[in-house]
Amino acid sequence: MTDLKTEGCGKMTERRWTVYLSGEIHSDWRERISDGIAAAGLPVDVTAPVTVHEDSDDCGVAIFGAEPNKVWHDRKGAQLNAIRTQTLIQDADLVVVRFGEKYKQWNAAFDAGYAAAMGTPYITLHPSEHDHALKEVDAAAHAVARDPEQVVQALTYILTGKLPAQRADTKAAE
Amino acid sequence: MTDLKTEGCGKMTERRWTVYLSGEIHSDWRERISDGIAAAGLPVDVTAPVTVHEDSDDCGVAIFGAEPNKVWHDRKGAQLNAIRTQTLIQDADLVVVRFGEKYKQWNAAFDAGYAAAMGTPYITLHPSEHDHALKEVDAAAHAVARDPEQVVQALTYILTGKLPAQRADTKAAE
Amino acid sequence: MTDLKTEGCGKMTERRWTVYLSGEIHSDWRERISDGIAAAGLPVDVTAPVTVHEDSDDCGVAIFGAEPNKVWHDRKGAQLNAIRTQTLIQDADLVVVRFGEKYKQWNAAFDAGYAAAMGTPYITLHPSEHDHALKEVDAAAHAVARDPEQVVQALTYILTGKLPAQRADTKAAE
Amino acid sequence: MTDLKTEGCGKMTERRWTVYLSGEIHSDWRERISDGIAAAGLPVDVTAPVTVHEDSDDCGVAIFGAEPNKVWHDRKGAQLNAIRTQTLIQDADLVVVRFGEKYKQWNAAFDAGYAAAMGTPYITLHPSEHDHALKEVDAAAHAVARDPEQVVQALTYILTGKLPAQRADTKAAE
Amino acid sequence: MTDLKTEGCGKMTERRWTVYLSGEIHSDWRERISDGIAAAGLPVDVTAPVTVHEDSDDCGVAIFGAEPNKVWHDRKGAQLNAIRTQTLIQDADLVVVRFGEKYKQWNAAFDAGYAAAMGTPYITLHPSEHDHALKEVDAAAHAVARDPEQVVQALTYILTGKLPAQRADTKAAE
Amino acid sequence: MTDLKTEGCGKMTERRWTVYLSGEIHSDWRERISDGIAAAGLPVDVTAPVTVHEDSDDCGVAIFGAEPNKVWHDRKGAQLNAIRTQTLIQDADLVVVRFGEKYKQWNAAFDAGYAAAMGTPYITLHPSEHDHALKEVDAAAHAVARDPEQVVQALTYILTGKLPAQRADTKAAE
Amino acid sequence: MTDLKTEGCGKMTERRWTVYLSGEIHSDWRERISDGIAAAGLPVDVTAPVTVHEDSDDCGVAIFGAEPNKVWHDRKGAQLNAIRTQTLIQDADLVVVRFGEKYKQWNAAFDAGYAAAMGTPYITLHPSEHDHALKEVDAAAHAVARDPEQVVQALTYILTGKLPAQRADTKAAE
Amino acid sequence: MTDLKTEGCGKMTERRWTVYLSGEIHSDWRERISDGIAAAGLPVDVTAPVTVHEDSDDCGVAIFGAEPNKVWHDRKGAQLNAIRTQTLIQDADLVVVRFGEKYKQWNAAFDAGYAAAMGTPYITLHPSEHDHALKEVDAAAHAVARDPEQVVQALTYILTGKLPAQRADTKAAE
Repeated sequence: MTDLKTEGCGKMTERRWTVYLSGEIHSDWRERISDGIAAAGLPVDVTAPVTVHEDSDDCGVAIFGAEPNKVWHDRKGAQLNAIRTQTLIQDADLVVVRFGEKYKQWNAAFDAGYAAAMGTPYITLHPSEHDHALKEVDAAAHAVARDPEQVVQALTYILTGKLPAQRADTKAAE
Repeated sequence: MTDLKTEGCGKMTERRWTVYLSGEIHSDWRERISDGIAAAGLPVDVTAPVTVHEDSDDCGVAIFGAEPNKVWHDRKGAQLNAIRTQTLIQDADLVVVRFGEKYKQWNAAFDAGYAAAMGTPYITLHPSEHDHALKEVDAAAHAVARDPEQVVQALTYILTGKLPAQRADTKAAE
Repeated sequence: MTDLKTEGCGKMTERRWTVYLSGEIHSDWRERISDGIAAAGLPVDVTAPVTVHEDSDDCGVAIFGAEPNKVWHDRKGAQLNAIRTQTLIQDADLVVVRFGEKYKQWNAAFDAGYAAAMGTPYITLHPSEHDHALKEVDAAAHAVARDPEQVVQALTYILTGKLPAQRADTKAAE
Repeated sequence: MTDLKTEGCGKMTERRWTVYLSGEIHSDWRERISDGIAAAGLPVDVTAPVTVHEDSDDCGVAIFGAEPNKVWHDRKGAQLNAIRTQTLIQDADLVVVRFGEKYKQWNAAFDAGYAAAMGTPYITLHPSEHDHALKEVDAAAHAVARDPEQVVQALTYILTGKLPAQRADTKAAE
Repeated sequence: MTDLKTEGCGKMTERRWTVYLSGEIHSDWRERISDGIAAAGLPVDVTAPVTVHEDSDDCGVAIFGAEPNKVWHDRKGAQLNAIRTQTLIQDADLVVVRFGEKYKQWNAAFDAGYAAAMGTPYITLHPSEHDHALKEVDAAAHAVARDPEQVVQALTYILTGKLPAQRADTKAAE
Repeated sequence: MTDLKTEGCGKMTERRWTVYLSGEIHSDWRERISDGIAAAGLPVDVTAPVTVHEDSDDCGVAIFGAEPNKVWHDRKGAQLNAIRTQTLIQDADLVVVRFGEKYKQWNAAFDAGYAAAMGTPYITLHPSEHDHALKEVDAAAHAVARDPEQVVQALTYILTGKLPAQRADTKAAE
Repeated sequence: MTDLKTEGCGKMTERRWTVYLSGEIHSDWRERISDGIAAAGLPVDVTAPVTVHEDSDDCGVAIFGAEPNKVWHDRKGAQLNAIRTQTLIQDADLVVVRFGEKYKQWNAAFDAGYAAAMGTPYITLHPSEHDHALKEVDAAAHAVARDPEQVVQALTYILTGKLPAQRADTKAAE
Repeated sequence: MTDLKTEGCGKMTERRWTVYLSGEIHSDWRERISDGIAAAGLPVDVTAPVTVHEDSDDCGVAIFGAEPNKVWHDRKGAQLNAIRTQTLIQDADLVVVRFGEKYKQWNAAFDAGYAAAMGTPYITLHPSEHDHALKEVDAAAHAVARDPEQVVQALTYILTGKLPAQRADTKAAE
């Protein structure tokens, strides 16, 4: 099922894809995508930022020494995290950018802009209540998903050409 | 005063700089920066997105026809605006990214990520209450300003080497 | 009117834009856009391929010598024309790609792909009957126009922030 | 036979090539190239768009929800397909662009322009009746083939230096 | 006459082109092209290497001090000349590469390869006796000219769309 | 422990990183980093310049022939070494740039500038006495380390999300 | 005299060059180059970092507020200065990198590495006592000068083809 | 011996290098380099153009059909060969460019210019009689070798840090 062979086409080669999961860290959306990929047997390498909130905040000072000023405490951490995140985004074939219900999540929008400038396609994943506020971010995306399962379906299609068995009514009202 | 000549250096050439002002559209920060640049006589071209909120939202459908679905209404507008914004960001020598007190302002963070990926330096402009939420965006910036006048002072220094007459106490506590 | 100053924003600088008009050469769409730009007083440099059909076909052999084989006759001309077209596309801030009612017009689609790969935004201009056949080309465009006047309106908005006085009903049916 | 060793040259290393097959989806040309590559034992990874016409049209709405307007129905699909196609074109060492007897096939010309702008070599594959209409696309190609077997012969030569046993009369009439 | 307006097209903008003249320095081909450009009134900036043979050879040691070893004598000169030549090639919209009857002229071929890798179009200018030896260099060129007047005609066409009054018989023997 | 799985995140894929160790060659800092990486079981490829001082100085003349002038003796060696160093820096995901207590070490600063221009993140490693003299080099770095063990801790965090068991007091004095 | 016309070549166009003067700020070498350029009437725009030492150190805190820790005091200044220096280096056609007799001058070597990675040619300017320590930096340079007058002579030659009237004995001892 | 471990440095990782051998096809220099690499056990992938002269000339017409005009006969072949050569040069970490005693060998100089523009290091390999004619090509090279064994020694040093046991007298006459 993970084969790139599609009907109407002969012996296609399997290619590994790398997908970076950016954004919200308070729900299980990364697990749902990872599990879905595993269940579908897709040849996908999944990457992500460090998602343990406190470690991500404190990593800079934990390694390079405490800072009395919170700004520099944060700066040291953010710059250390950036070695990981920007390298992984640059490696990715596709980025998924998740905006949850809460918080500013400016780093997610930053990652989207970064991917856009590099020409790396990305899919946003957010509830419809954010549609208007995210209209610029969505306009540069290749797709807007509402739940992680749609991302897995999209990956399945992109890699194998398979569509979900139960597809939505796809008849356009012409 | 707008000359690039600095003490200790001879006949330097005047160079025009282009500065793009990204982000919040509900306060007069762009005017304050533009006025400050004019008052200082700096050779700076200032560019910006369309800042009339309603026009910016409706431009796509106003020109290319109405859409019953708000998502596509927004999409048409956002893609038309992107012709302007991404071209001007690509042209800019420096981007100033403003985050106000309210709203999600994800497009501002998107612009910051876009500038970062292109290697264009940017200065963020926001109140300290956003410091933690913007730590990734600030970590990739060249400076963090609290008010528009600091941006004008920074531009004055970058272009002419002149520092403000009343400078803050610059003695570090070594 | 051609000023980049917009309401809610101070002294913006006028920037010249370069727009390349690609595609169909059998109707007056380029004149209508050029005339519209002139009438609106927009600071736009308009560029285009050589649009005299016979000269465009014969230029290679007219200068470098006849070819008995039509393939090489065409090759010499196409390569000479490409010096002009690819240089002008690379220079352009925006490309307008026109598909008329007739002919294959593969060179127009080629130019669209070329612009897309370079990250140069483009607007397609074609009747709705081509919508399905052009869906990939339109999906990478920033806008789809039906007539040259919409392109002029879009340029007016992009450069000055002005929308047409008589705008279409922009209320989305939420 | 798939070895890169050529007469007059020592121990050359085998290198895998990636070839993307763009364009027409109504004949068996991809199978003929894939089968030819397999028969020749060439170290080539073959990639292609999804070639099941209906799925390719409907994939966007099947996953992300129906659209009453055919334009947005198509847009969702084209943007999802673009994640696959543009990534695979960017990966390819060589693109083969096929134009069949029928249809507009603007996406094929778009892919050729995209490859040209990226500096990726491509071979066009089309009947001679399209020669004049494709003269710009052919002028930027590295070769023009008439049948899939010529593409396999070209790949065999590029990778191994082997020419077809029965070669056409190669004597030029000087 | 130097106007970019072409029949069938409206008010086109005049664009200055930069053309670098690379290669042979023993005949007057650069003067003939420069004079032809002036006579045609074309908006072209012409650039070239230093063409005084002895100065070009000795410039390095004349400024930075003598070298007893001819290899380093040449190295110092070649690296100083490269500051000029590579900068001007990078600036050029079009390169003309001239191979005369005599000498190795490897620097001309080097410049052609340099231009090819940068995606800058070039026209070769050489007698037919070099056709076979230059086949790789010509294959990456946009045109092959036999005399400087053809280069001027090509520039006239590229910039203005005008073809020579006395054009060669352009009828292909179909 | 070398797994990219982090708490709060599912099945992440292991990715190999390449780290280039630039700079000082008179202490055992490279061994300490290499040993630390091995002890932590991190999937890291470590690369470095040739670190045998005399060989590095003499390699050019040892292979390509003696030079009576020390400048050209050094030039031949430096250019040969540059094939290795610049290729490995271009390959690296991360560069560590070490400045020891003594010597000018301009090549280390050169490598930092090279990495910065390529957008490759780097960590500097130097005693605090160099802080002021290295302020420009540190300002473009992602982190400043004082000892090799901090570099290993940073790599451990970047690759696996694990922080040192005994972390420094990370409480900022807000 | 500032004309690009050279003997043996016709009407060449004058081109403005931009030269960035990087490095040591304690002697008058920039003035000597600027004065020499002015005396020679060369069409050169000269750019440089801010060269008032104290202002360059304190600019960050003078504008954005004091820092008790000298490391962050320096960081703020270095990042503000980098907006100017990296923009001007990216603009430059040629960089001159000066190493004086004293100090570490790591920022000069950093700028050289930055220019090298961008493919911008540079000339080093330093006394012979630094030859061995700067061998990697010199190996990537296009020339090594000992005094500012040689830089002016080099610029005169690069732009106009004129060599100094009193040239050093340029006869190589073959 | 093929290990990247060098004295004074710990556990370095073995990296495969790709070396493209460009130029002259009438002597056994490629075999001597390939054999030398094999004998030294270096992890090097060697690539090259097709080196059977007649096949290389005729490949285009052998596959795509005869041409009565020798120019187009050659063009078809050169463009087919370019798919191989430019792809392999773009893949290479290092290019060796060989100029033999005879023939114009403009394609070798073209390859050198191509590599230079891409920033790929190259070593030239030619007898001293060509030194002056190749001074521009050598000036952009990282080394100039006289025989294939020097190339093998250079590769051995670049990859492993090992110098030849019998090294030339490396004492510079200071």
